[in-house]
Amino acid sequence: MKKMALLYMVLIAAFLAYAAQHIYTNKADERSFRSQQLRGELGENYVMVTFLSGIEYWKSCLKGFEDAAGALNVSIEYRGATQYDAREQITVLEQIIAKKPAGIAISAIDTHSLTGVIDKAVDAGIPVVLFDSGAEGSKAYSFLGTDNYAAGAAAAERMADLLGGQGEVAVITLPFQQNHEERTRGFREAIERSYPGMKVVATEDDKGDAMVAKNLTQSLLRKHPDLAGVFVTEAAGGKGAGEAAAELVRDTKLRVIAFDTDKDTLDMIREGSISATIAQGTWNMGYWSLQYLFHLHHDLTIPSPAASGDVSPLPVGVDTGISIVTPDNVDDYYAK
Amino acid sequence: MKKMALLYMVLIAAFLAYAAQHIYTNKADERSFRSQQLRGELGENYVMVTFLSGIEYWKSCLKGFEDAAGALNVSIEYRGATQYDAREQITVLEQIIAKKPAGIAISAIDTHSLTGVIDKAVDAGIPVVLFDSGAEGSKAYSFLGTDNYAAGAAAAERMADLLGGQGEVAVITLPFQQNHEERTRGFREAIERSYPGMKVVATEDDKGDAMVAKNLTQSLLRKHPDLAGVFVTEAAGGKGAGEAAAELVRDTKLRVIAFDTDKDTLDMIREGSISATIAQGTWNMGYWSLQYLFHLHHDLTIPSPAASGDVSPLPVGVDTGISIVTPDNVDDYYAK
Repeated sequence: MKKMALLYMVLIAAFLAYAAQHIYTNKADERSFRSQQLRGELGENYVMVTFLSGIEYWKSCLKGFEDAAGALNVSIEYRGATQYDAREQITVLEQIIAKKPAGIAISAIDTHSLTGVIDKAVDAGIPVVLFDSGAEGSKAYSFLGTDNYAAGAAAAERMADLLGGQGEVAVITLPFQQNHEERTRGFREAIERSYPGMKVVATEDDKGDAMVAKNLTQSLLRKHPDLAGVFVTEAAGGKGAGEAAAELVRDTKLRVIAFDTDKDTLDMIREGSISATIAQGTWNMGYWSLQYLFHLHHDLTIPSPAASGDVSPLPVGVDTGISIVTPDNVDDYYAK
Repeated sequence: MKKMALLYMVLIAAFLAYAAQHIYTNKADERSFRSQQLRGELGENYVMVTFLSGIEYWKSCLKGFEDAAGALNVSIEYRGATQYDAREQITVLEQIIAKKPAGIAISAIDTHSLTGVIDKAVDAGIPVVLFDSGAEGSKAYSFLGTDNYAAGAAAAERMADLLGGQGEVAVITLPFQQNHEERTRGFREAIERSYPGMKVVATEDDKGDAMVAKNLTQSLLRKHPDLAGVFVTEAAGGKGAGEAAAELVRDTKLRVIAFDTDKDTLDMIREGSISATIAQGTWNMGYWSLQYLFHLHHDLTIPSPAASGDVSPLPVGVDTGISIVTPDNVDDYYAK
């Protein structure tokens, strides 16, 4: 009996050893299969680079970047020029390139300053995509951001709704930044095309400063006493124009349409001093930027053999979409 | 001794049973973790739907769809109307919706016919994206395709290069299909804007038929004996116009710019009867369509809390890019 028990034990032990081994082997196979799938490797690090790195606007872009990193099992880092300074952003990029990350997503401070350093990164074999704000003529593989012309046109439609298609309007903008130029052009051309009763009487530069925007709005109201609306293409100025509208003593309200969804702007929509603001698809910018960089890093972008010429390995442009925030839906836009 | 051996065996067996159990548990944990990652589930099926389902053009779109399915571990199916028939495509879509797939990528036969059936799919909770050819005003989450206006403008630039910026040109197109309308408009406006020495003297409809395109080209040459170039916005007609150019007895060559990269067109670029063709980012259309559908199906598109209003869960528009095929690079575009 004891011999039989011993034999059983040996057989059971051998079977269990075999089973454990079998399970282990399967696990290893699965792991190597998975590494060909959409899973990053140890130490695979991607960097997001912006300018004015402290502002609220980037939070949702970074959240998208982080969420993609979680899905793809890679690590990320957020860097940026703290100031609105092209040379500082170039220096930050030079430092990042020296560390050879798996990829870099850049929001360019202007359309021209970063082209050289972007091309340097691409030539060094580091995948680069641009998000939010592009760099014309650079070797970056893709641009993911708002169709700013369409966003400006959507602001014009909203303004026309608010004003019943009648009245003088003005634009407050950053005239030397491409995305703001396009918002202005989209706004202006939509009004010229569709609203003969409306006229853009001025386009001013607020230098991204709420106080400047407030002063500009007040001086515009002196020059154009019938001014019915102001479209402010950048986040800081919307608050200034909203303050000027709140302080205005006049029978008809000055309508302000702002851009972006930081807390102050949303509060002023609740209070009524800003009538609407344009929300951008910032989470999508960050999320799909990292997806694109990951696909470039892992050579998962190979087009079909029939298109192996100089076809771009990635979509060249991605419109991340907008929506319009009004008193009716403003509560949905507060960070929870 | 035997008692000791028995005890050892029992201990070893218990340990191995524990180890096997432990490995098995880890594996189960990993599986549930992975399912939150970019891995599909058993039976998760996505469908690509086109019209004229037999044509070569879709092969590279489908290859992209297949490659994404491999990366995401899901299954796919290719369906389509065999003819150029909107009602047939609607019927196919109705059948697919009844099976409740995980998502549908559709290339719409025209801009209006499919809107109802697309909305029906979305209302039934089935994610839908459009690729290559859109459906205006539908509830589809995204459109992935060529920026056809830019493609037409690129064709105009190439035509101007070939003709030294001088001469009469014509367009042969499908005037009622949105993508072809945009190619025509991009071509025409680029010439009006930048090439005062060039003129678009005619825009004709070849109904997607090579023989019609050949006859049209010959009749255009009778009406406009100095006609220097023809831009054909669709694949079949390029061959017809190329044949007419090859048979033309005249001192100067008639320059033909075609669209897409099927074998006949590439052969005629090698022979010289077609001067260039526009290659589209078809692999990208299929690959990123499936990625988008997967993200919708798995609720991985949730934007950040700060943008939980009616922001689109996905980028609304994706420009998959183009490249220009010439005698210099034509060899790269043959299927290998």
